[in-house]
Amino acid sequence: MATIKDIAAKLGISSGTVSKGLNGASDISEPMRQAVLHAAVELGYKPKNIVNKASKKVCIFVQNMNYESIDQFGYEIIYGFEQEALSKGFQVTVISANLNMQTKESFDTYMLRHGYPGAFLLDFELHDDYVTQMHTTKVPTVLLNNHVPGNPHVGYVGTDNYEGLKDITSHLHELGHRNIAFLNGTKNSMITQKKLDAFYYAMKEKKIPIRDKLVAFGHYNIDCAQEFVPDFVRNGATAIICASDFIASGVIKVLHSMGLRVPEDVSVTGYDDLPIARFLSPALTTIRQNRTDLGKSAFLLLDALMNGIAISRIELCPQFIARDSAAQVKTLGK
Amino acid sequence: MATIKDIAAKLGISSGTVSKGLNGASDISEPMRQAVLHAAVELGYKPKNIVNKASKKVCIFVQNMNYESIDQFGYEIIYGFEQEALSKGFQVTVISANLNMQTKESFDTYMLRHGYPGAFLLDFELHDDYVTQMHTTKVPTVLLNNHVPGNPHVGYVGTDNYEGLKDITSHLHELGHRNIAFLNGTKNSMITQKKLDAFYYAMKEKKIPIRDKLVAFGHYNIDCAQEFVPDFVRNGATAIICASDFIASGVIKVLHSMGLRVPEDVSVTGYDDLPIARFLSPALTTIRQNRTDLGKSAFLLLDALMNGIAISRIELCPQFIARDSAAQVKTLGK
Repeated sequence: MATIKDIAAKLGISSGTVSKGLNGASDISEPMRQAVLHAAVELGYKPKNIVNKASKKVCIFVQNMNYESIDQFGYEIIYGFEQEALSKGFQVTVISANLNMQTKESFDTYMLRHGYPGAFLLDFELHDDYVTQMHTTKVPTVLLNNHVPGNPHVGYVGTDNYEGLKDITSHLHELGHRNIAFLNGTKNSMITQKKLDAFYYAMKEKKIPIRDKLVAFGHYNIDCAQEFVPDFVRNGATAIICASDFIASGVIKVLHSMGLRVPEDVSVTGYDDLPIARFLSPALTTIRQNRTDLGKSAFLLLDALMNGIAISRIELCPQFIARDSAAQVKTLGK
Repeated sequence: MATIKDIAAKLGISSGTVSKGLNGASDISEPMRQAVLHAAVELGYKPKNIVNKASKKVCIFVQNMNYESIDQFGYEIIYGFEQEALSKGFQVTVISANLNMQTKESFDTYMLRHGYPGAFLLDFELHDDYVTQMHTTKVPTVLLNNHVPGNPHVGYVGTDNYEGLKDITSHLHELGHRNIAFLNGTKNSMITQKKLDAFYYAMKEKKIPIRDKLVAFGHYNIDCAQEFVPDFVRNGATAIICASDFIASGVIKVLHSMGLRVPEDVSVTGYDDLPIARFLSPALTTIRQNRTDLGKSAFLLLDALMNGIAISRIELCPQFIARDSAAQVKTLGK
């Protein structure tokens, strides 16, 4: 383990200056402070309060996710994380990690400068700076729905997508559907790839043919439906599986605007079971991700990583919620 | 939640008799006691000390696994589980679950009768009674390397096999091997299937052709090698990936008995990194499963399930251990 002396020796400066740099003192220059932090990260220096596990504070970085009100995806995740953290005596700070912040300073430097022994990263995309740094970071970190294999300091928490897609596909299969479309989320995301794999797996298990024209990448929002739904319908889709409830809400809107009924003409399913799901018309058949438990599990995982237990992933059991947006396939000629 | 009165009403007996049946009193008949327990399980009755989380004892069922000495697979797993459990104030009992015991009494009845709020099942095979009952049990239970999807009370802990097989395959690929055989474990096991999937995935990623003649199911012991290794060699295998260190030790023995050198003629890799791995000649290149952390994670998972957090799985990060049993592929003509 590197010491303050090692950092001083590396930079050819005094230990006092190193301490000032690490402690954010105002009487050294900003370039010197950055040089100290940079060397400290490079040498794997850890402050005493982190080594002794006396630092009882962790942080959550949020990006591209709304979490301020209870109907938003992130709200309960953060609530569950905080609940579990507080029960173990940890303080939690939520930080908005915009791209600018990520470019300015490396993740490890930020964590060292603020004395956080661990972090939870919410909804970063594969090309973000922080996510790229996850391959090499030595700071215990948990990612939501984003997997960085091979680094024992980084774990991922999510819901078992194989189970979720299997439940939905089985349901549609039982209802007689054989022309099933899949409107996935944003392409640059691990979770999108996992959902696609799970969709293929589930369709194969039920021996339903997969047709390329019925599979598309959209975005995790309501607006992407317009681009794909008319083609799906033209190509004979009788059911559309959506990778999120927001996508499904858009799909229902587009189908209605085309004069089609849901579920009489086309069945639609969601994913997440956001609070909006049951208020849609028709109420959405979907997969519930228990977001409070996701948050709690994220802290459990982070706590394990901070104690040197190299958990790679925790996946939760999803729950299939049958409502009104999927029904028996329309018999030909009716 | 069912009460003692509900059980009494269902059976048409007094509450006093039900209490006696539940508490193992000696002055009621065995058939009556079984009837009480059976009805209690059916109605979902839970003793007060379990509902109030006052029962601070859990159990580990072991079958087909040696765990008495440190060089055996189960030893450190149980040690890690106990360590984590004790730190949370739980007592742990290790129970040998032979098939006879499983036939005599259902899992839920056993757990109710002994007042255990949760259990860890070590190394049961897919067709065992207890494993079959995992689809419907309401008792929080953790399985090692055995996944029962769809039951929110049951979770699974293991090592990420995709990572493990990817690391091994990449290593052999770098060493120039393109005729890679895979000697898997016992067929009736989820972990064997997972390893097979992971092997296919890893081979595809490296664009190495998979040849059916180079893939076989053996058993998780040293003796299965004789049946398959001569055929592998005849079919041109330059490297043999084994699903466990025990299998690998057998493979090395057979290769030696055929007059072949490891790794000069054929490379061999293991899985698990048991204590024997580094004593083999040559020392085994393998994948380490951190067994203490597996045990610790099993308790973390069980604790989460007992608190109503429906974690479906926890997977640990494996570690690739390069030793001497895999080397550069022999160039033709040498």
